[in-house]
Amino acid sequence: MENETFNALIAQGGGPTAVINQSLVGAILELKKQPSVGRIFGSHFGVKGILKEDFIDLTNLAEVDLEAIAKTPGSALGSTRDKPDAEYCAKMFEVMKKNQIKYFFYIGGNDSADTCKIVNEEAKKVKYELHTIHIPKTIDNDLMVTDHCPGFGSAAKFVAQAFMGVNLDNASLPGIYLGIVMGRHAGFLTASSVLAKQNSEDGPHLIYTSERPFNIHYFVRDVKAVYEKYGRCVVAISEGIIDEEGTPIASKLAKQVEHDAHGNVQLSGNGILGDLLADTVKSHTGISRVRVDTFGYLQRSFAGCVSEVDAKEAREVGVKAVQFTFSGDVDGSVVIKREGEYNVSYALVDLAEVNAKTKKMPPEFFASDNMVSQKFIDYVKPLVGELPIIKKLIN
Amino acid sequence: MENETFNALIAQGGGPTAVINQSLVGAILELKKQPSVGRIFGSHFGVKGILKEDFIDLTNLAEVDLEAIAKTPGSALGSTRDKPDAEYCAKMFEVMKKNQIKYFFYIGGNDSADTCKIVNEEAKKVKYELHTIHIPKTIDNDLMVTDHCPGFGSAAKFVAQAFMGVNLDNASLPGIYLGIVMGRHAGFLTASSVLAKQNSEDGPHLIYTSERPFNIHYFVRDVKAVYEKYGRCVVAISEGIIDEEGTPIASKLAKQVEHDAHGNVQLSGNGILGDLLADTVKSHTGISRVRVDTFGYLQRSFAGCVSEVDAKEAREVGVKAVQFTFSGDVDGSVVIKREGEYNVSYALVDLAEVNAKTKKMPPEFFASDNMVSQKFIDYVKPLVGELPIIKKLIN
Repeated sequence: MENETFNALIAQGGGPTAVINQSLVGAILELKKQPSVGRIFGSHFGVKGILKEDFIDLTNLAEVDLEAIAKTPGSALGSTRDKPDAEYCAKMFEVMKKNQIKYFFYIGGNDSADTCKIVNEEAKKVKYELHTIHIPKTIDNDLMVTDHCPGFGSAAKFVAQAFMGVNLDNASLPGIYLGIVMGRHAGFLTASSVLAKQNSEDGPHLIYTSERPFNIHYFVRDVKAVYEKYGRCVVAISEGIIDEEGTPIASKLAKQVEHDAHGNVQLSGNGILGDLLADTVKSHTGISRVRVDTFGYLQRSFAGCVSEVDAKEAREVGVKAVQFTFSGDVDGSVVIKREGEYNVSYALVDLAEVNAKTKKMPPEFFASDNMVSQKFIDYVKPLVGELPIIKKLIN
Repeated sequence: MENETFNALIAQGGGPTAVINQSLVGAILELKKQPSVGRIFGSHFGVKGILKEDFIDLTNLAEVDLEAIAKTPGSALGSTRDKPDAEYCAKMFEVMKKNQIKYFFYIGGNDSADTCKIVNEEAKKVKYELHTIHIPKTIDNDLMVTDHCPGFGSAAKFVAQAFMGVNLDNASLPGIYLGIVMGRHAGFLTASSVLAKQNSEDGPHLIYTSERPFNIHYFVRDVKAVYEKYGRCVVAISEGIIDEEGTPIASKLAKQVEHDAHGNVQLSGNGILGDLLADTVKSHTGISRVRVDTFGYLQRSFAGCVSEVDAKEAREVGVKAVQFTFSGDVDGSVVIKREGEYNVSYALVDLAEVNAKTKKMPPEFFASDNMVSQKFIDYVKPLVGELPIIKKLIN
């Protein structure tokens, strides 16, 4: 009697990253090694594609094509922000059963981990033997348990290189520069701008994240003080900064607040927060040259700015997800553990430890309300890797 | 009797670029070869630094440091947007004479060429033997006579890589994406986004520059048509787009219009134009996922995104400026001539052909009001050089 084979399904959820396809390719290549896996399907646009049986057969893709896909930013399979409920799951299971799917790999952030948990629980309820494994990614770096998230290092590299450039630009034509960086609740990405600093005269001179309440009066006071000292001031600000009551400054200002299915307010994709902050600085300091850039989607998918460590680890979490599944037939979420400086190992943790939760920057990563600590620099440096060499004539 | 020596002065004007320091270093290294040049001074913050005698001695900088400075974005000497008049020049000449300066090299765009012309004319009036040479740079690529401008290729590379990324991001989570690109009167930089397209399904699907009048109704109609065809739409828009009467759309919207000494309206450094266009698309199409990024200063000085051809040519215009000066003792502006595909030669032209004038994209670079032509692609490709390889699973 022949051994029974089952099929595997891979999908991608949430915002793309520069290295999310490394995880996809890692999982595909490892699945191909498993004798009990028949076909490997990809779902087009995350869980949404499962409903429509919108599948792509990934089983026989040439390795050279897979390697090129791995290096391409964005979610190669397409993504979604859909959050399935019992009815949604029932429809998915119908399609999945029809296609003899036993293994479901979902590459995404905390909302995608939540999707995995829901799918797992619903599968158990209806007694469908399905193994759902969450493969982590997020530029926000806000997943629980794991030391850091694939996708973060490359986005942090973009932010660091961007601030290296705008700091030099601001030194050329002095004034105030505000850079608004992605990050809903966690400030890791904004904090990474610190890597642009070679000395205290370099920007960013001030860093504001959502972990500390944002007070507009202190903000103006601090910007003014830096400007008086250096004749210029470069500031990194999280899109998710909140006031003393915990209300996001950006959502207080948006004409119409947009929410996704997971209840998240849409913060990116407009320049409102930046423009308000710039106007406030202008009117309260009398300094005329105030410029603001909202980094937006550039930092998430810029082609050609990848951290090598990040790319390697993103590949590895895809590989490990498959290995964990087939060594123990368990469900869960893959996490990265840091060992020494700098090595990592991988583990599988319960989905309940990760789903729909948000990790914030711990207090020891801050030196003050407007600057990060050396501990944070030590944490983030190996994740970003090599940066361009900057040599100045004048400080 | 010993040969008489004179000193040389170098300064940088206008917006920085990623390769402007290549020109600085090219000029320094070539000046060091001239036996009649005593000392090489750099002026801090352009012509402004001359008034204050704020000089940096560049004569004895180590070659290893110069090479590192050349690779660093931003204006290493600092910049200015000051426009000198007769009185300003008289003060400059006092300082210059005191420092025995006979050669003045000014690295900048069309406003800096204008400064060179003014300085030259004033020097003649007061019978001060000064040779003023304009070394070109501008990310806008809008200088007259020259085939293209140093600084443009690297900025165009950033724009192309950014659109490669946002196109893939938009394909992952479909919707409307607007990218606002720098360019006051000339659309070259916005047009370079076309290099992100591998086929007709790729964005940017629409490209709007200031050479063609921007009509908001046609814009909404065209965005809608693309969205209906592909389920998504990526658009590249110049910050300098103008209406049928020639009024910049951005300056019509800004609360308070800011001008520099050369009479230019400040278009960059805020998100107003993008937000207005996004709101208009949202309200007129009913499509909810509309996102906009204003690329701002990122495209001008991003550390680590340089076109190799651009870096090489930026170095060469600095070298040639010195060679032209010492072979003929003439004043003028260095231009690049394209020969075959792809080679260049350099020439010196009269400042009056370049100063304060703006080159726009010629009609043959457009295929329609919202797309560039193959001729433009052939023009821009060699200036940008290699781009990341993109491989998609789905079109």
